[in-house]
Amino acid sequence: MAEEIILLDFWASMFGMRVRIALAEKGIKYEYKEQDLVNKGSLLLQMNPVHKKIPVLIHNGKPICESLVIVEYLDEVWKGEAPLLPSDPCQRAHARFWADFMGKEVYDVGKKVYMSKGEEQEATKKEFFDTLKLLEGELGDELYFGGDTFGFVDISLITFYSWFYTYETYGKFSIEAECPKLIAWAKRCLLNKNSVSKSLPDGKQVYELVSELARKLERK
Amino acid sequence: MAEEIILLDFWASMFGMRVRIALAEKGIKYEYKEQDLVNKGSLLLQMNPVHKKIPVLIHNGKPICESLVIVEYLDEVWKGEAPLLPSDPCQRAHARFWADFMGKEVYDVGKKVYMSKGEEQEATKKEFFDTLKLLEGELGDELYFGGDTFGFVDISLITFYSWFYTYETYGKFSIEAECPKLIAWAKRCLLNKNSVSKSLPDGKQVYELVSELARKLERK
Repeated sequence: MAEEIILLDFWASMFGMRVRIALAEKGIKYEYKEQDLVNKGSLLLQMNPVHKKIPVLIHNGKPICESLVIVEYLDEVWKGEAPLLPSDPCQRAHARFWADFMGKEVYDVGKKVYMSKGEEQEATKKEFFDTLKLLEGELGDELYFGGDTFGFVDISLITFYSWFYTYETYGKFSIEAECPKLIAWAKRCLLNKNSVSKSLPDGKQVYELVSELARKLERK
Repeated sequence: MAEEIILLDFWASMFGMRVRIALAEKGIKYEYKEQDLVNKGSLLLQMNPVHKKIPVLIHNGKPICESLVIVEYLDEVWKGEAPLLPSDPCQRAHARFWADFMGKEVYDVGKKVYMSKGEEQEATKKEFFDTLKLLEGELGDELYFGGDTFGFVDISLITFYSWFYTYETYGKFSIEAECPKLIAWAKRCLLNKNSVSKSLPDGKQVYELVSELARKLERK
């Protein structure tokens, strides 16, 4: 049976991008279906009735939801090609811990940067850089979070890079000035990995989207 | 080398209980170290410097943090004994999705039940039962969430059962009246699984703890 793989996604989603990178790493061909997140389509509602969120991978008719669950699934089914999780259980646990951290902590503090104002934004800025510096500490002097090879933790974090321009513009700060090692890592991922460079949208487009949504919220 | 396994935990934590159940399922002997969560000890801070939270499993000196990460780790290292995750990648993804749901959605809505008051509590009550009914739908007519065998999703949810008395007392409702299938499943787990019955504290003790904390918060 020919494999039928469909990805329900939204271009600016850092969670959707994770799946796009994993699919590209594995060399898997798939049909990309951009979703309207305001008026959600029947396929999305049918395939992810619990969270009603992208990304959803539909593999031969069966839905897999939640970005990290999908990336692990792809890694298990397409085992031979570009392994993403380490084989050692202790290192796997470590990778799962950090991947989970990105989706919770980095996402939350990043969102606060463009949602907060005034004094609150100052406190957020500190929290934002504390979080990124924690990541720099975890990276250490390695090429990637996966060590010599690009892996699960790298995938889970690099997609936020397309939102850095938004964080910087709203927060009025330079991430590179504070966290040069992290930016060097991000540039390394983009330069060395086609899977990354072709899956991440331009940061200015993300910023325009966020600004437009902010204007709509203010009008309400 | 003899295995040295230490669990940093707190008796009333539904996340810690997950690890206790998994350890019991696997028949693993370990040293239990109850933690003071107000004045956190140096071992906890050293072993989980990022989140500073229990549970932490220390296996031959190496820390593993986050309950589901620990349970997966135990399942990978002690493969032969009582497999917790299904072997099929699609079913594994499905199990990971639901286990994640328990820790986020069930935990959050449960907390709202004892934190909310008045009208807000009425809305929370609806949300709480919507969530539990979703779980009943997922369970269907199966013995366990893992089908015929008790597994990863069962472990991730059953520990909340020790908090049901607290939810019921604060929410002034009966979970059994609304969700009899879910309660039947919980009783089945307790009756058939020593790993569960010996890992869950008495619901009234949990309630006393929550009431005491609530009184302290009110005095502040």
